[in-house]
Amino acid sequence: MAVYTQVTQADLQGFLAQYALGELHTFKGILAGTENSNYLLELASGRYILTLFEARTVPAELPFFMDLMGHCASLGVLCPKPVAQNTGIVVGQLCGRPAVLVSFLSGQSLARWQPVECLALGRALAGFHLASESFAQQRPNALDQMAWRPLAEKVSPRADELKQGLWTQLDDSLTRLLQTWPQHLPKGIIHADLFPDNVFFAEGAVSGLIDFYFACTDLYAYDLAICLNAWCFEDDVTFNVTKARALLQGYQGVRSLTSAELAAMPTLCQGAAMRFLLTRLYDWFYGPTGELVKKRDPLAYWKRLSFHNQVKSVGEYGL
Amino acid sequence: MAVYTQVTQADLQGFLAQYALGELHTFKGILAGTENSNYLLELASGRYILTLFEARTVPAELPFFMDLMGHCASLGVLCPKPVAQNTGIVVGQLCGRPAVLVSFLSGQSLARWQPVECLALGRALAGFHLASESFAQQRPNALDQMAWRPLAEKVSPRADELKQGLWTQLDDSLTRLLQTWPQHLPKGIIHADLFPDNVFFAEGAVSGLIDFYFACTDLYAYDLAICLNAWCFEDDVTFNVTKARALLQGYQGVRSLTSAELAAMPTLCQGAAMRFLLTRLYDWFYGPTGELVKKRDPLAYWKRLSFHNQVKSVGEYGL
Repeated sequence: MAVYTQVTQADLQGFLAQYALGELHTFKGILAGTENSNYLLELASGRYILTLFEARTVPAELPFFMDLMGHCASLGVLCPKPVAQNTGIVVGQLCGRPAVLVSFLSGQSLARWQPVECLALGRALAGFHLASESFAQQRPNALDQMAWRPLAEKVSPRADELKQGLWTQLDDSLTRLLQTWPQHLPKGIIHADLFPDNVFFAEGAVSGLIDFYFACTDLYAYDLAICLNAWCFEDDVTFNVTKARALLQGYQGVRSLTSAELAAMPTLCQGAAMRFLLTRLYDWFYGPTGELVKKRDPLAYWKRLSFHNQVKSVGEYGL
Repeated sequence: MAVYTQVTQADLQGFLAQYALGELHTFKGILAGTENSNYLLELASGRYILTLFEARTVPAELPFFMDLMGHCASLGVLCPKPVAQNTGIVVGQLCGRPAVLVSFLSGQSLARWQPVECLALGRALAGFHLASESFAQQRPNALDQMAWRPLAEKVSPRADELKQGLWTQLDDSLTRLLQTWPQHLPKGIIHADLFPDNVFFAEGAVSGLIDFYFACTDLYAYDLAICLNAWCFEDDVTFNVTKARALLQGYQGVRSLTSAELAAMPTLCQGAAMRFLLTRLYDWFYGPTGELVKKRDPLAYWKRLSFHNQVKSVGEYGL
């Protein structure tokens, strides 16, 4: 989330005329995140988040995300609930961009977290997976393992600018990873981007999961591996096994991992590190630059990948 | 919870010397509930709840409850986590009573609630059931269907004092209920007393489940039936189908009910109403009286039972 598109009060009032949510009291831009423009609106009927979708979003995919959030919210998952316009449509237009209103969630994302929050996150992730089981739609993962080789080829000419010898090591890792990638684990809708920015906490409990715009059909345990990468390394990229154990235990307290999922966890963690390493490398060399965009260090994910390459079994993640 | 046993500061300081929790800042009695004495303690290391167990508690059963809470808390269930003394024991002694310290949970129980909180409750209950699956201990339900006939016989001489004709109708209901009680539904540890007093909410999310002292091995779906009785009737004992639907949907979003559980739901709801009707009748006629004890109206549960006696299928509960 960030603010790329500036919306005026008049724009907003015109847009809100299509909803039965009462008059606009205040609005302000939300300066967090990297993909879309977001505003917090205070209306007569309560607080809402307005999202304007920027260039990376495919408008035809928005109904999938909205339906998914609506489905999960109806089952009690603490996630934004889309609000329909008077005509029934959910995805509107504002300032030339697709735009949606969703319910406001209380709580805040954490800059620092402890194992107890990893435990809560694990439960929330498993709860989301169980809720998404009854969601009928599918969406292929555009960044799944089939996408990694083409993406790697794009960054190969420049990878060594960042670190001498990176390309050869990355290429070797990717080759091994694609040979061992698991094919038959339980699948369903995963969040695929559940970084600390995208989880709100209030009073020690998870109060919201947000930003479902990478959600797709893929391996449930891969979603957990993404979280293990995002939540269980310290700033210096040392692995915190206590946080990992808490994350896995919290998840297992709600949804038991199969023995095949447990056995595949090191490979899945390598894959999750590889996926974010590759997109960070791509953005580093070819992504937009500017004051609003803070580029993310690819090497933080290279170090994670190197760590997971040494892991022999899920026991090293604390289970 | 209530305060039956008055504890002095000196008592408390002696008790706390057995823990490594730092010095006592303040303490105060908690005037809620009906079974045990509870104090909120502010210690150097944080807030804790002290519980002194009164007459209804069997001391030999306390380790079961403490182990269960510790197990569930370790899996991320938001419930009190028992604190061990320096010697490792969890159940101590204070003022001649068994006494435990548990972690403080933020949030508050609700006097009024909406369907959205029933949805959250359903998810939390299912999450507790899934977590308790991996708890190895068992505890028979002292108030299960086998206990209802003996309890009914005790109140039979006086039931009609409360309402003319109550005994005959109750007797008929119980006979039919015991003939149809389901035998082969999924079983595990249930809370068995998840009334609104025992659920804390903060920022719209469930922040804590408390009071595990009726927890026992019984049918999972019976726990849901207890909640349906406790949360889905208004003060005038009219049934709120929107709340019931939300409760069931929230539960199913985390743990799917089997077709046998769904089919048995009206019977289970009758049973839950019968269990609380019988104990309320018993307490009404034979229970302790006094300023600290607010007796609960048995007829509120007679009306619930009468409602469930008319229900033909789970569809009438909103599913």
